[in-house]
Amino acid sequence: MSSIPAAPASFIETYRQQIDQALNRILCDSDGIPERLFKAMQHSTLSGGKRIRPILTLCSARCLGGSVDKAMPAACAVEMIHAYSLVHDDLPAMDDDDLRRGQPTCHIAFDEATAILAGDALQALAFDVIARKNTDLDPEQQLGMTRLLAKAAGARGMVAGQSIDLDSVGQTLTSEALSGMHALKTGALIQCAVELGALCSDQADPQEHTHLSGYAKAIGLGFQVQDDILDITSATAVLGKQQGADKELNKPTFPALLGLEGSKQKLKGLHEEAYSALARLNHRDTSELRQIADYIVTRVF
Amino acid sequence: MSSIPAAPASFIETYRQQIDQALNRILCDSDGIPERLFKAMQHSTLSGGKRIRPILTLCSARCLGGSVDKAMPAACAVEMIHAYSLVHDDLPAMDDDDLRRGQPTCHIAFDEATAILAGDALQALAFDVIARKNTDLDPEQQLGMTRLLAKAAGARGMVAGQSIDLDSVGQTLTSEALSGMHALKTGALIQCAVELGALCSDQADPQEHTHLSGYAKAIGLGFQVQDDILDITSATAVLGKQQGADKELNKPTFPALLGLEGSKQKLKGLHEEAYSALARLNHRDTSELRQIADYIVTRVF
Repeated sequence: MSSIPAAPASFIETYRQQIDQALNRILCDSDGIPERLFKAMQHSTLSGGKRIRPILTLCSARCLGGSVDKAMPAACAVEMIHAYSLVHDDLPAMDDDDLRRGQPTCHIAFDEATAILAGDALQALAFDVIARKNTDLDPEQQLGMTRLLAKAAGARGMVAGQSIDLDSVGQTLTSEALSGMHALKTGALIQCAVELGALCSDQADPQEHTHLSGYAKAIGLGFQVQDDILDITSATAVLGKQQGADKELNKPTFPALLGLEGSKQKLKGLHEEAYSALARLNHRDTSELRQIADYIVTRVF
Repeated sequence: MSSIPAAPASFIETYRQQIDQALNRILCDSDGIPERLFKAMQHSTLSGGKRIRPILTLCSARCLGGSVDKAMPAACAVEMIHAYSLVHDDLPAMDDDDLRRGQPTCHIAFDEATAILAGDALQALAFDVIARKNTDLDPEQQLGMTRLLAKAAGARGMVAGQSIDLDSVGQTLTSEALSGMHALKTGALIQCAVELGALCSDQADPQEHTHLSGYAKAIGLGFQVQDDILDITSATAVLGKQQGADKELNKPTFPALLGLEGSKQKLKGLHEEAYSALARLNHRDTSELRQIADYIVTRVF
């Protein structure tokens, strides 16, 4: 459980490349799509990104005996929901961000209307992809996965988190309220990513789903705590987005509430919690999921 | 095939009430949804509306021997996609409309960020609803319906139409280009509504799907031609939205291209086309679908 920053394990890079290739295949055919809209969708989905969520889907599937191929459509669908949420989140009426992943945000590179539409189209595409004919999956299972994604993305999941986030600007939240907000804004989709992977394997028992879910909750919040820490300790060039943006927006953050040292302690606790949850998955190879937990807490951007 | 304006047939009103009740049930439980977001979702979905699309889903299902109950979730899903598209369409960066269905638009009644999020959440909810467990439907059939909705709502369907519409402001389009734009912007979802109904009945043969699809294309475009006509002939109070808004936005319309008389002729042609398509559905009761075609061309708002 080292906290020394390290290059991500090579399997993470391999998965990332496979995911990029799969997303490229989904978004390579412009036929029937207005050019500007298509370019905005590509810009928002194919301009890099850590691909944490889809990597989690693949690792979770593999941990429970599923395959990368079987889990890839769900992984891509989760990433497209994430990509659309960033596009809408960056809009002037929301966080008003100009820079994302070292590139101009969608409404800067194109225009606001195109950014709204590209986000809308990416959400629809995510549901198209997760519901696509897949002989490896039972249709009932696939319908369940579609519902899981819809709920995680919706008014009781990610969108709820964004709504609470916007209402919290300038407010003083308790650590619990802040965690609750992030459990929705970032956590809901991260948890969904892990659970979708688990659903791509039909060998898991309900107990295993519970343990994986506990793991997902811990790393989901850990991801956000590290994000808040990086927002004040990392340079804009490394982050690929405006450093100090949270403070400028007067957003509640863990460092503002707990201090930098307190936030690092919280992160350490969540890292341990993720490890404990995985330890309960007997007879399963959890090494990839453990290494992702390491990566999440030691990443520098 | 009378063109005399008449009160809509009573079955239309009955279906509308059933749809309103079903939408109310879907959007009655605020548990877990931030209050402002929930109210914005209700405002955007439950403040009236003609409910043409979901009525078409129900009638199409009934025409092919399906039931209202079986088709209702798909009908509601289509209406929620339509409702979200109006919310985003009305945003300042898009059409910048203040009035819709005689009420302030979502971003006026709430704020821009809430309107963006309410639209996003409604789209997710639509996919949740269409994928919900339904013992009346075969899971594979339901997955197919989910994909159909995703495609109709997405970058090659409704969103493509909105994108082309925005790019067309101030442009002179040919009648074909204008029809093509509307075939996507309004037509894709109307066609989807009819096809979803047909998919809720397992008795239809492919030929029947083709005929219904022809009907849907004709009334989809007819709906838009009548919309354009009403925009210049009807008063704001009757329309429930700003009269003359298209002209003010310098949007290409059928009356601008073909004149008022030419537009009325085009509408008459589309009405006849819809009737011809239905006439090919032998041994089916097409009376409801015929009456909807009548309603669409004679409606005054």
